[in-house]
Amino acid sequence: MIKITLPDGSVKEFENSVTPLDVAKSISEGLARNTISALVDGKQVEVTTPITADATVQLLTWNDDLGKKAFWHSSAHLLAQAIMEYYPSAKLTIGPAIENGFYYDVDFGGEAFSEKDFEKIEKKMLENAKKDSSFRLYPVSKKDALQEYKNNEYKTELIENLEDGTITFCTHDNFTDLCRGGHIPSTGIVKAVKVLNAAGAYWRGDEKNKQLVRVYGITFPKQKDLTEYLERIEEAKKRDHRKLGKELGLFTFSEKVGAGLPLWLPKGAKLRQKLIDFLGAAQQKAGYEIVATPHIGHKDLYVTSGHYDKYGADSFQPIKTPNEGEEFLLKPMNCPHHCEIYRSAPWSYKDLPKRFAEFGTVYRYEQSGELHGLTRVRGFTQDDAHIFCTPDQLIGEFEKVIDLVLYTFKSLGFENFTAQVSLRDKENKEKYIGTDENWEKAENAIKQAAESKNLPTVIEYGEAAFYGPKLDFMVKDALGRSWQLGTIQVDYNLPERFDLHYIGPDNEKHRPVMIHRAPFGSLERFVAILLEHTGGDLPLWLSPEPFIILPISEKYTVYTKKVLNLMENSDICGRIDERNEKTGKKIRDAEINKIPYMFIVGEKEEESGTVSIRKRGEGDLGTLSLEEAVRMMKKVTDKP
Amino acid sequence: MIKITLPDGSVKEFENSVTPLDVAKSISEGLARNTISALVDGKQVEVTTPITADATVQLLTWNDDLGKKAFWHSSAHLLAQAIMEYYPSAKLTIGPAIENGFYYDVDFGGEAFSEKDFEKIEKKMLENAKKDSSFRLYPVSKKDALQEYKNNEYKTELIENLEDGTITFCTHDNFTDLCRGGHIPSTGIVKAVKVLNAAGAYWRGDEKNKQLVRVYGITFPKQKDLTEYLERIEEAKKRDHRKLGKELGLFTFSEKVGAGLPLWLPKGAKLRQKLIDFLGAAQQKAGYEIVATPHIGHKDLYVTSGHYDKYGADSFQPIKTPNEGEEFLLKPMNCPHHCEIYRSAPWSYKDLPKRFAEFGTVYRYEQSGELHGLTRVRGFTQDDAHIFCTPDQLIGEFEKVIDLVLYTFKSLGFENFTAQVSLRDKENKEKYIGTDENWEKAENAIKQAAESKNLPTVIEYGEAAFYGPKLDFMVKDALGRSWQLGTIQVDYNLPERFDLHYIGPDNEKHRPVMIHRAPFGSLERFVAILLEHTGGDLPLWLSPEPFIILPISEKYTVYTKKVLNLMENSDICGRIDERNEKTGKKIRDAEINKIPYMFIVGEKEEESGTVSIRKRGEGDLGTLSLEEAVRMMKKVTDKP
Repeated sequence: MIKITLPDGSVKEFENSVTPLDVAKSISEGLARNTISALVDGKQVEVTTPITADATVQLLTWNDDLGKKAFWHSSAHLLAQAIMEYYPSAKLTIGPAIENGFYYDVDFGGEAFSEKDFEKIEKKMLENAKKDSSFRLYPVSKKDALQEYKNNEYKTELIENLEDGTITFCTHDNFTDLCRGGHIPSTGIVKAVKVLNAAGAYWRGDEKNKQLVRVYGITFPKQKDLTEYLERIEEAKKRDHRKLGKELGLFTFSEKVGAGLPLWLPKGAKLRQKLIDFLGAAQQKAGYEIVATPHIGHKDLYVTSGHYDKYGADSFQPIKTPNEGEEFLLKPMNCPHHCEIYRSAPWSYKDLPKRFAEFGTVYRYEQSGELHGLTRVRGFTQDDAHIFCTPDQLIGEFEKVIDLVLYTFKSLGFENFTAQVSLRDKENKEKYIGTDENWEKAENAIKQAAESKNLPTVIEYGEAAFYGPKLDFMVKDALGRSWQLGTIQVDYNLPERFDLHYIGPDNEKHRPVMIHRAPFGSLERFVAILLEHTGGDLPLWLSPEPFIILPISEKYTVYTKKVLNLMENSDICGRIDERNEKTGKKIRDAEINKIPYMFIVGEKEEESGTVSIRKRGEGDLGTLSLEEAVRMMKKVTDKP
Repeated sequence: MIKITLPDGSVKEFENSVTPLDVAKSISEGLARNTISALVDGKQVEVTTPITADATVQLLTWNDDLGKKAFWHSSAHLLAQAIMEYYPSAKLTIGPAIENGFYYDVDFGGEAFSEKDFEKIEKKMLENAKKDSSFRLYPVSKKDALQEYKNNEYKTELIENLEDGTITFCTHDNFTDLCRGGHIPSTGIVKAVKVLNAAGAYWRGDEKNKQLVRVYGITFPKQKDLTEYLERIEEAKKRDHRKLGKELGLFTFSEKVGAGLPLWLPKGAKLRQKLIDFLGAAQQKAGYEIVATPHIGHKDLYVTSGHYDKYGADSFQPIKTPNEGEEFLLKPMNCPHHCEIYRSAPWSYKDLPKRFAEFGTVYRYEQSGELHGLTRVRGFTQDDAHIFCTPDQLIGEFEKVIDLVLYTFKSLGFENFTAQVSLRDKENKEKYIGTDENWEKAENAIKQAAESKNLPTVIEYGEAAFYGPKLDFMVKDALGRSWQLGTIQVDYNLPERFDLHYIGPDNEKHRPVMIHRAPFGSLERFVAILLEHTGGDLPLWLSPEPFIILPISEKYTVYTKKVLNLMENSDICGRIDERNEKTGKKIRDAEINKIPYMFIVGEKEEESGTVSIRKRGEGDLGTLSLEEAVRMMKKVTDKP
C-alpha cells in the first residue's frame, strides 16, 4: 500500500504504483482533466510519472504558477521542434519557461531569423500540437548523450557538466531534446501560440561567447487567453512610465549626467513634492521627526555598519580627497547616518521611541544594462525612516508602521496587495549578520504584527535583508501585474554595530531595536508604478497641472491672468495656453497631456465673470462663476 | 608749485615739498589732529612723508579701514618692542595688521610665553606708547640689513628676498624693525592695549618649518573703544552658531560621517524646511519652476562645463564604477544639471525666460583645518536657480532677482547691507573663461541693474567667478560684522559650452544668457548667520518650536494633549514638557532653549478651558481661552 498525502493534509491509500493522474482521478474526473503537472515530494514531475513509495502530492492545473511553468516548458519543445523543421542546421542550446511564456536560445548558424518568420513558426507549432503527442522522458547514458549531440557544442558543454546516470532526454512526436522533465500530459492542450520576439543573447550570458538568437514565445490553453494577453501587453506599452514620463514632461535622462540618474522636470518635481508632502503630513501625525543628512559618509561609517564589507566591491568606489588621505562613499542607505544622529545625544527609555524620517537620496551602482526607466536606477529618493525603540515597544511600533503603509496604499488607489514575510534562509546563515537569538526574536515580531493586523501574507525563506527580516508589500496594478512597494524591516544588528543604547528604568544601559521602513519604497519606483497603474491619469490631488486655461483668442489675456491668479491664490496650480492655436487644437493637446480640467475663456465668459469648464474624458461641464470654479477645483484637488 | 588732488576732485596748490599733514592743516586744524595716515597716489605712507611732485592724496583717520591698519601696524611695533624688552633672546619674524588688530610671530627660543604673560606686555606697551615717540622710516642697504639681523634667520630670509635699494627700517623710541612703512604719526595716540591670544603658527605657514608663537593683540585710541570691543567679542562668543546649534539641538557633526558634513537634527531640519518653504513660495510667485537633479554627474558633464579642468585636481576625486569604467563626480554646483534640463527640450523665444530652481545639495572639498561650523562646510544646500533668457530680457530678469533678494533680506530682518559688484581682474584674464565681448556685456548689465535699483554698491576687480561677473550681497549683523550672503551672477559661457539655444522670431537659433542666483547663498551658511544675528532668538515664524506646554503635574495629561492637538491642527508645532520637574525648572529650561511662548497648565486652566501664557524675556501675559491662544499663536507665527 502506498500512502499519498495531499496539500490539505488528507491521506489517500493506493495499491502498488500510482501516478499523479491516478490520484486526480480518485478525487474527480474534472480534476483529472485539468491536472497538467504535479509536485511529488516537492519535485515537479509529469502526471504519468509512477509513484512507488509513500509521498506528498500536489496536483497542478493551468491556474497554478507551476502548472503554467510545465505548460510553457513543454511549449518550448514545440518551438524547438518547429525551428528544427524549418532550419535543420540550427543548433539548439537552452529553452526555459519564464514569468510570461518561454524562450529558446538558438544558433541559426548565420541564417537570418526575424519577425517575418514568426508566423510560419507559429503555424507549425500549432500543427504539431494538434497531433496531441505525449511527452516521454527517459534516461540516457552520458556517452550516448554526447554521441547524439556530437555536432552541437552547446548541448555537449551542458552534458559534460552533468553526472552520468542523471541525464534524461524527452521525446514528443518526432522531436527529442536533452531535458530534465516537468511536462504537460500531451501537446494537444496547447491551443494558442504566439512568437513574441527574437533578440540577441550570448551563450551563457557571457559577452565573450558567441551571440545566439533568443526566440520568445507564449502559449495558452484557449485562444481567448492569448487575445487578452496581447491586449494587456498593448495596454502596458501605452502605460509604460518611460513613455508617459516623456509625453507628460515629468522626467528625463541625460547621457552627460549619466544613465539611471533621473532629472525631474518641473511637472515631475511637483508630483514628487506632492507625494513628499502627503507622506510628510501623515508621518508628522504619527510622531515622526524629520532629519536631514549628507549624501556621503566616511568609509569608516560603512565599515562600522557592515555595508562596506558586504557590498563595497560591487558599489560605486570610494571618493578620495586631494590630500589628507580621506575616503568617502556615496550613501547607499540612510540608516548609518540616522544611527549617528541617535548616537549624538543620550536617551532615556522615556524618550523612546525616536522616529527619524528623511526623504533621503541614495546611490547604488547597477550595471548599465540592468537600468530601466524609474524602476531600476542608480540614484533614488527613499521615503525612509528609522525607529529606535525598546524591545517592549517593537511590536506596537511595527503595527503602527503597518497602519501607515496601509493608509498610504489606500490613499493612492492601490487596493489589491499582499504582504510577504521575508525570512532568513536557515541553511545559508553565513549570508546574514547577527545572532540566531536576535533573528528569532525579529522574525517572530514581524509574524505576530502581521497576524494581529490580519494582513494577507506569504512567507518566503531566504528573502530577508542581510541585517534582518522584512515585511515587503506587493501591490497589483490595474493590469494585474505585481510590484514590490513598501518595506518594513526589523534590525537588531545596527544598534549593536553602532553601540547604541538608552538608559532603562533600572538605570542601566540597554540596546534599542531599530525598524527600517519605507511605505513607497522609493519616490522614483513609486511614481513609475503609479503612472503605469493609472495610465497617466493621476489622482486629481497629485496632478501637477490639474487645470489649464484656454483663451479663444489673445484678446482675453487680462481676464485669463485674473483667473490664473485666483486659482494660484488658492494653491491650485495651472497655466494658460497662450499659443496662437485654434481652441479645438488646444483642447486636443490638453487631453493628450492628461490635464483633467480645461477652462475655456472667451467674450461671453469675460463679460459674465465665468469660465466654461471641460473635463478630460467627460466633455463639457457647463459654465461656473470664478468663485464656484475655485471652490470646485479646491474640492476635487483636496488631499485624502 | 605742487598740485594735490583730493578725493572729492578738488585741487590744492602748494609751494615746494609738502606732507599729508600739511595738506590736512590747510583744510582744518581738526582734520590735522585726526589724520593718522595717508594714501599718496594709492600708496599708504606716513603723514610726514614729503610729497615732491603733483599727486592725489587721501587723508586717513581712525574711522577709515586703512587708518586702523596704520594704527594696528604701528601697534605691532609696540608689541615687538615690549616682547624684546622682556625676552631679549627672542627672534622677531613678521607682524602685520589684520581685520581686528594685529599679530607678531615670534620665536621665543624655547622660553615659555602664555596667557599669564599678557598683562606685563600690555603694561609695557602702554608705558612705551606714552613716551609719544614718532616712527622714523629710513633706507638701509641689503648688506647692512643682513648684518643687523645676522642672528635672526627669519629676518635674514625676508631680506634675502628683497631687492637692494628697496629695504627700509623703522625706528621709534629705542626699537628698530625691518619695515615697509605706513605708520601713525606717533605712539602717543595708542591709549588702550589688549593682548588677546598666543597660538602656534609655522614660519611661512609651512608645517615643515619651525613652530613660532603668534601673539595677537588689539589697540584703540580710547579706553572706551577697547571696552566695547571686548564686550562685542564676549557677545559674539555667546552667539557663536556652533554653540547655539548645540544648545538648541539644531545640528550636529559626527566624526564617522565626516568633518564639515552637518547632520540636521529634527529642530534644525524644521528651521531649514521653513526657510525652504518661505523662499519656495516667493519663487513660485516670481515664476520659477522647481526641478530636482541627482548629486552626481558623469565626469564628462564637468569637462563640458569647464569645472573639471579648473577645479578637478583640488576637488573630491572621481567616483569609479566597479566595472564598465565610468567616472562620476560629486556635484560641486547645480548649473551643469540645469543646463542638461534646458537641453532636454526645444525652446522658442516665446517660452523664455525659463527659471529652474532647486534647493540643491552640493559638495566641495575643503581642507579639514579650514572647516568652521556651518559657515565653512564640505556639503551644503544652495537655494539655487538658473534663469535662461534672451539677451533682451537680461536686465529685466536681473532686476527681478534683485527684488527677490531684497525681499528675502527684509523678511529675515537684515536691513543693513551693501552690494559688491565683482568684476574681472583685467590684468589676469587667463583666470577666466569666455570672450572679452561677453564679459563687457555681462559686467555692464550688472552695473546697470544695480543702478536702476538704487543699490548701495562697491565695485571690486578680480572678485568675479571664473565664468562671469557677480553681484554679491554683504549683510551686517546685529554685532556689526559683515557676512557675504546672496549672489547673482551673469553667465554667457555655460550656454556656449553646453551649446544651448532657442529659436528666435527670425526662426534662427540663438544663444540664451544664464543668470545664476542664490539669495541665501546656502542654507547652512544662512542659518549660521541668522543664529549669530539673532543670538538664537529666531523670528517667530521661523521658530522650530514656538511654544511649549508646561503641565504643573501629571494629572493634566489629557488636557495638555488636547491643547497640543488644537495647535497642531492649526499647523503650529510645539511639545509638552512631560518631565517630572517643578514648574520653575521647566520655565527656566524653556527660557534657555529660547522657546518664545510657554503655556502653563494646571487645575484652574483645565477647569476653565484656558492656558496661562508666559513669554520669554517678558514674563506672564495672563490667561487666554484655547481658541484665543490658537489665534494669537497663528498671528505671531505668521509668515511675512
